[in-house]
Amino acid sequence: MAEDQITRITITPVAFHDLPLLNTVGVHEPFALRAIVEVETADGLLGLGETYGDEAHLARLHAAGDALIGTGVFDVNEAAARVTRALATDTGTGGHGMSGMVTGSSTADRVLSPFEVALLDIQGRTVGRPVVDLLGGAVRDRVAYSGYLFYKWAGHPGQPDDDWGAALDPDGIVRQAHRLIDGYGFGALKLKGGVFPPAEEIAAIRALRAEFPGLPLRLDPNAAWTVPTSVMVGEALAGVLEYLEDPTPGIDGMAEVARRVPMPLATNMCVVAFDDVPPAVRAGSVAVILSDHHFWGGLRRSQLLGGLCRTFGLGLSMHSNSHLGISLAAMTHLAAATPNLDYACDTHWPWKRADEDVIKPGVLAFTDGAVAVPTGPGLGVELDRDALGRLHEQYLSCGLRSRDDTGYMRSIDPSYTAVSPRW
Amino acid sequence: MAEDQITRITITPVAFHDLPLLNTVGVHEPFALRAIVEVETADGLLGLGETYGDEAHLARLHAAGDALIGTGVFDVNEAAARVTRALATDTGTGGHGMSGMVTGSSTADRVLSPFEVALLDIQGRTVGRPVVDLLGGAVRDRVAYSGYLFYKWAGHPGQPDDDWGAALDPDGIVRQAHRLIDGYGFGALKLKGGVFPPAEEIAAIRALRAEFPGLPLRLDPNAAWTVPTSVMVGEALAGVLEYLEDPTPGIDGMAEVARRVPMPLATNMCVVAFDDVPPAVRAGSVAVILSDHHFWGGLRRSQLLGGLCRTFGLGLSMHSNSHLGISLAAMTHLAAATPNLDYACDTHWPWKRADEDVIKPGVLAFTDGAVAVPTGPGLGVELDRDALGRLHEQYLSCGLRSRDDTGYMRSIDPSYTAVSPRW
Repeated sequence: MAEDQITRITITPVAFHDLPLLNTVGVHEPFALRAIVEVETADGLLGLGETYGDEAHLARLHAAGDALIGTGVFDVNEAAARVTRALATDTGTGGHGMSGMVTGSSTADRVLSPFEVALLDIQGRTVGRPVVDLLGGAVRDRVAYSGYLFYKWAGHPGQPDDDWGAALDPDGIVRQAHRLIDGYGFGALKLKGGVFPPAEEIAAIRALRAEFPGLPLRLDPNAAWTVPTSVMVGEALAGVLEYLEDPTPGIDGMAEVARRVPMPLATNMCVVAFDDVPPAVRAGSVAVILSDHHFWGGLRRSQLLGGLCRTFGLGLSMHSNSHLGISLAAMTHLAAATPNLDYACDTHWPWKRADEDVIKPGVLAFTDGAVAVPTGPGLGVELDRDALGRLHEQYLSCGLRSRDDTGYMRSIDPSYTAVSPRW
Repeated sequence: MAEDQITRITITPVAFHDLPLLNTVGVHEPFALRAIVEVETADGLLGLGETYGDEAHLARLHAAGDALIGTGVFDVNEAAARVTRALATDTGTGGHGMSGMVTGSSTADRVLSPFEVALLDIQGRTVGRPVVDLLGGAVRDRVAYSGYLFYKWAGHPGQPDDDWGAALDPDGIVRQAHRLIDGYGFGALKLKGGVFPPAEEIAAIRALRAEFPGLPLRLDPNAAWTVPTSVMVGEALAGVLEYLEDPTPGIDGMAEVARRVPMPLATNMCVVAFDDVPPAVRAGSVAVILSDHHFWGGLRRSQLLGGLCRTFGLGLSMHSNSHLGISLAAMTHLAAATPNLDYACDTHWPWKRADEDVIKPGVLAFTDGAVAVPTGPGLGVELDRDALGRLHEQYLSCGLRSRDDTGYMRSIDPSYTAVSPRW
């Protein structure tokens, strides 16, 4: 076996504490699930990837991982082909990692992603270069992220209030924004909407605008609105929003809204796979695509998405899901190598506990809303095996096996239903 | 200065013997011009690139080369930005390298290309890997090329006949095809058309079909025909051609032909830059794009083109211009790393003298119409400095400074004019 061939793949599900963050399909459960992928080669190098922790996804990761044994670390094309073949007979459902909000992503790309990242990590370690160099080199040495605002309860039901407290109205959102900006220096803000009637969310955005006059603002109701409601909100927030994200479901609905509102529409819901790009381009559905290497097939395929956006005159931003440090490192390398990244990237980072991660601390830090690109070989982060063990124990004991924001909400409010559009 | 920074760039124009190959804008001159780009780093590594040798292009290469001193070999994004900036005030004309047949390619991408290839060559040498590994790894270890048939005179006017002899009718083309297949094993054939009235070229294709029943056949008249003529030829060759290449000028004309002929249309004329892709996709102009790293900005940007084709359901093939071994090596690495390369690639390789090249012999060889992917570090080919010197001397003495098929034809037949469409 050649020295650079994959000899072992370890997939470890982990759970970390999450807060009761509200969205249009429910509320975040007390723990967020992720899977940590370790890829080892014959010559003893280790590469890391991070992905969703849903049970159906874990089963696919194991099937793909078995198929990847023996692949060379530079054979990313071969790895992609093996993952596709390993999943050819997959008939499972679920495992999309986003509580049913994004279900159209490519299964093969979603499963390939953490392995591709791990292979690039090993490639970088092999050649003594950061991953950003393998992606064409850094066009920026710091990557700007936006502050991600959520409506939230004061605490999980039956538990003490968390230290963020409630944010259920404009005042609460503004208070939360101050804390995020004070702690991280974010220079852009995004509000997760679709939770309250549109008038309340318009009021929250206006309150943010009044409090932070210069900051780019975004609103993402996750397709909670009809076309007329979307147009109403778009008109109400003319000149206020940097972009309006996924106001309504589907490529056709988005296209109709796009024709009738003054601001760009962005999406991480109606364009989530390469197959979605041609119809969205034809329909003129969106002006900005939010990339996400976790479901676009890894860093190189996310670069292809970036090139598609540039070619077709679309803006490019970056989506986030609850994540740990391996993902933040990968997102930062990708963003640093992407010339046409037009907006600050999303991140859920502030919502996890600072002492809960699977990497050794010290590399990733926010200053003025940005993360410096790691300069060490590969992703530039190192696995903390004790921490990984603790978060895996937490996974075993927490009882959660798939993200289910709607189910959790219904356990609290049995009358709750997830409908789209809601208003 | 860091060890991997570019310290010196050498651009050497060379000339190699060419034969009187006919096309719709004239005839190949006695010499083909190329420029050999050598990029050297502080730590003494050398990377190679090959591109057009036209005088206007050489001037741009020098401007770009000056701007690239100090760039790191992994900073391809930075190199691209510097090349773009260096050419921002360029007001020169010409230098497209293809005798006026392809003038819409991106100047920045055309100039970037040899430097990008040289940087990848050095990257590969740095890490001890062939370039194909930096592009995602080989999906095939041999790259199939097609036999490129040309109408030709028996020899250059005023010179003795060359050993290929004349090919001015179906018999001559069939004879030429036999020699190409006997010598190289090609499993596909392309005829450069647009030289004789369409009925004669239809007859030549039918003669090839009769002689080589199983071989994929292509015809490329370089936009010599009107839409009605293109449709007539397309209908006449239904079921015979693998694809019909650039029958007529322009995105709209091609779209009209595409709707009315039974075979796929291919292009390296109406889609030659990323800006051309959206209108061609909208119009449905082509089913196959012929990539060419020499004008699409290098190997990584050609991979982006491949991803665009895959995303939009377009086929992908590869265009060729008269070239030497550095180009053939680069084309082969790129093709080997491209999963959706649907057709045998074009090459002019058989038309140059076997003893004229700038690389040391032994690496690149045709067997059964295919070239094995070089396995050495980088491009896997080594500069032969003596040979480079000889071809540079030939450049100096030959008197040609820009490719001008039309001017050469007019020197022989003053009544000749290049018109498109011609029939």
